[in-house]
Amino acid sequence: FRSKLPRVGTTIFTKMSRLAEEHQAINLAQGFPEFDCAPELQKLVGKYIAQGKNQYAPMAGVMALREAIAKKVFAANAKEYHPETEITITSGATEALYVALSTMVHPGDEVIVFEPAYDSYVPAIELNGGIPVFVTLHPQYESIDWEEVRSKISPRTKAVIINTPHNPTGNVWKRSDLQQLADIAEKHDLMVISDEVYEHIIFDGREHISAASIPALAERTFLCGSFGKTFHTTGWKIGYCLAPKELTTEFRKIHQFLVFSVVTPVQFAIAEYLENPEHYLTLSAFYQRKRDLFVDAIQDVGFGLRPSEGSFFQNVSYEELSEENDRQLAERLTIEAGVASIPVSVFYNQITNYQTLRFCFAKNDDTLLRAAELLRKVV
Amino acid sequence: FRSKLPRVGTTIFTKMSRLAEEHQAINLAQGFPEFDCAPELQKLVGKYIAQGKNQYAPMAGVMALREAIAKKVFAANAKEYHPETEITITSGATEALYVALSTMVHPGDEVIVFEPAYDSYVPAIELNGGIPVFVTLHPQYESIDWEEVRSKISPRTKAVIINTPHNPTGNVWKRSDLQQLADIAEKHDLMVISDEVYEHIIFDGREHISAASIPALAERTFLCGSFGKTFHTTGWKIGYCLAPKELTTEFRKIHQFLVFSVVTPVQFAIAEYLENPEHYLTLSAFYQRKRDLFVDAIQDVGFGLRPSEGSFFQNVSYEELSEENDRQLAERLTIEAGVASIPVSVFYNQITNYQTLRFCFAKNDDTLLRAAELLRKVV
Ligand SMILES: CSCCC(=O)C(=O)O
Ligand SMILES: CSCCC(=O)C(=O)O
Repeated sequence: FRSKLPRVGTTIFTKMSRLAEEHQAINLAQGFPEFDCAPELQKLVGKYIAQGKNQYAPMAGVMALREAIAKKVFAANAKEYHPETEITITSGATEALYVALSTMVHPGDEVIVFEPAYDSYVPAIELNGGIPVFVTLHPQYESIDWEEVRSKISPRTKAVIINTPHNPTGNVWKRSDLQQLADIAEKHDLMVISDEVYEHIIFDGREHISAASIPALAERTFLCGSFGKTFHTTGWKIGYCLAPKELTTEFRKIHQFLVFSVVTPVQFAIAEYLENPEHYLTLSAFYQRKRDLFVDAIQDVGFGLRPSEGSFFQNVSYEELSEENDRQLAERLTIEAGVASIPVSVFYNQITNYQTLRFCFAKNDDTLLRAAELLRKVV
Repeated sequence: FRSKLPRVGTTIFTKMSRLAEEHQAINLAQGFPEFDCAPELQKLVGKYIAQGKNQYAPMAGVMALREAIAKKVFAANAKEYHPETEITITSGATEALYVALSTMVHPGDEVIVFEPAYDSYVPAIELNGGIPVFVTLHPQYESIDWEEVRSKISPRTKAVIINTPHNPTGNVWKRSDLQQLADIAEKHDLMVISDEVYEHIIFDGREHISAASIPALAERTFLCGSFGKTFHTTGWKIGYCLAPKELTTEFRKIHQFLVFSVVTPVQFAIAEYLENPEHYLTLSAFYQRKRDLFVDAIQDVGFGLRPSEGSFFQNVSYEELSEENDRQLAERLTIEAGVASIPVSVFYNQITNYQTLRFCFAKNDDTLLRAAELLRKVV
């Protein structure tokens, strides 16, 4: 049996969650909230189930949800996506990303990937016969070297995949970054995949710059988003892809044979819940408070850290504390301190020696404070 | 932009459903029930949402559901699948089928497909660079010519995909068919994908013969199933794949980068609902009565028909009534009679002239009776 993904083993998320369980450690590894979604949203799902919205959704998604997304994106970016032809509801952003890559990547095509990168990008490229070409960034990089990006482009380059706010680093792209990307993409006729699942978790007054906000970019972008992080519903698996009509047509051809459609009553519930922008515009403040609480609490552990700019992840470096690589340290801290984290090196595809751990702070305050105390004792 | 699926247009299901809507026709086209799922099952989803089961399920699925499936499959087939290593919960059977094909099909590999075939099989093979090799059956075939199947096997043949009870024809495979397949698969070292989503809709005392019931077959089979047809919840999108450990390992590598996991509270709800076998063992009787009602009602329309053996589809032929091809007739009946059906030729990949329509009888009795009356007037 010839494996399609010979290098892939158990994901780090499953591995660290298991290790955390085994050692009854606090799980700041896998990125999901410790708290529940709003009772109001829960009731909406019940309402639509009771109304009998339990059969196949349209392949492209429930129209009410597509319209709600169009309205929300227009309000933020003054960019109109047409629900009928440019918006598709997917099984989480993961499916949106996979299908977008599958839509354009033919065997031998190259895709530029900034690493560290979320763990699904590279396998999704490789499953489609594509070749990832890496631009390697330090976990706490200050700015992207666009000359380096240019130097990685070849006649076989088909696309660039970006992610802001960024998992795992928490870095946020500036408008100038997206503008640079737009110039390059136009010049070399590249497609863009923009992973914006943390769009509503962004700190210190920064603004999320969506690919939708830059016309030259939007016209060649598959914008992938989801509601799991925004509404504390990572287990509901509702995502979407926004793309110009011709791209959406091809996207849907693949989506329809991958999953066909997505859970109907939840789509209706989220559509209704989106009517009140408070439900997502208050999220940054909510998480900024948690970030500050956690950063304060671990201040004297001795880690090197720069406060996260967005997402619910805080990275820390530890060059001066330990010689271990980050996989070793993440394991040891789970076992000895009782706090699980993710070693950032797993998000790299070339061997690296950045000594950095990622902590998820989407947890209750007392969980974060206890974790800090446990870390202080051991590190 | 080079399309991955240049020959794929809008699916027939979307097309006929739209046409039906336009002409306010009764929709016996797309296969989904007109009636709702059980209130008890609806309440279970609400219960698990209220309990906070709203974050990521384990990548392979909620353990309670995997265990419930193992128990159910063991009861029916005396075959043990291990929840930890051999059962994966998917976004409907559609995802299970796609991932199973993706797991084994490398560019240039051939897959034997019996046609008429469900519309996702061929694109899923082609998206993975595979080549479908067709064994063409008449919609109302009486038995499979296994010599023909053997003649289609080449050194590049990797797998065979089967479906019983069968969509669109309603035909059911006998134990001897599966035994023949097992012999061939063993001899030529082929893998099997078995689509068994209609396992609980089977008529006139027939028995569903699962690939799981034949050890020589089970050890090389990705068994794909789902709950949408069984519990009247086609919109909930919970399916599964059962396969030996080594195959499941590779299957999960792909599943995890396609969707990662599936809607958590619904998995818990179905796990609990499965505890009572009455919830699915009564389904055949329920649908047999509907089949009989529909077949009786259309008896004098003039169609040629053999009662469906399983699934919720009834095929009819009409050679003696019209010269039209089935696409033309299906369209005309939607517009003139006000009854939408599916032309069976869309399930063929070679040009064919079988003049056959598929009607879905998963509808309320009065809908079926009204449809029959309308057909009687026009045909
Ligand atoms: C899909 S499991 C991983 C969750 C996540 O986004 C992360 O921890 O990075
Ligand atoms: C996924 S839409 C098609 C539903 C169905 O199974 C059918 O009508 O054949």
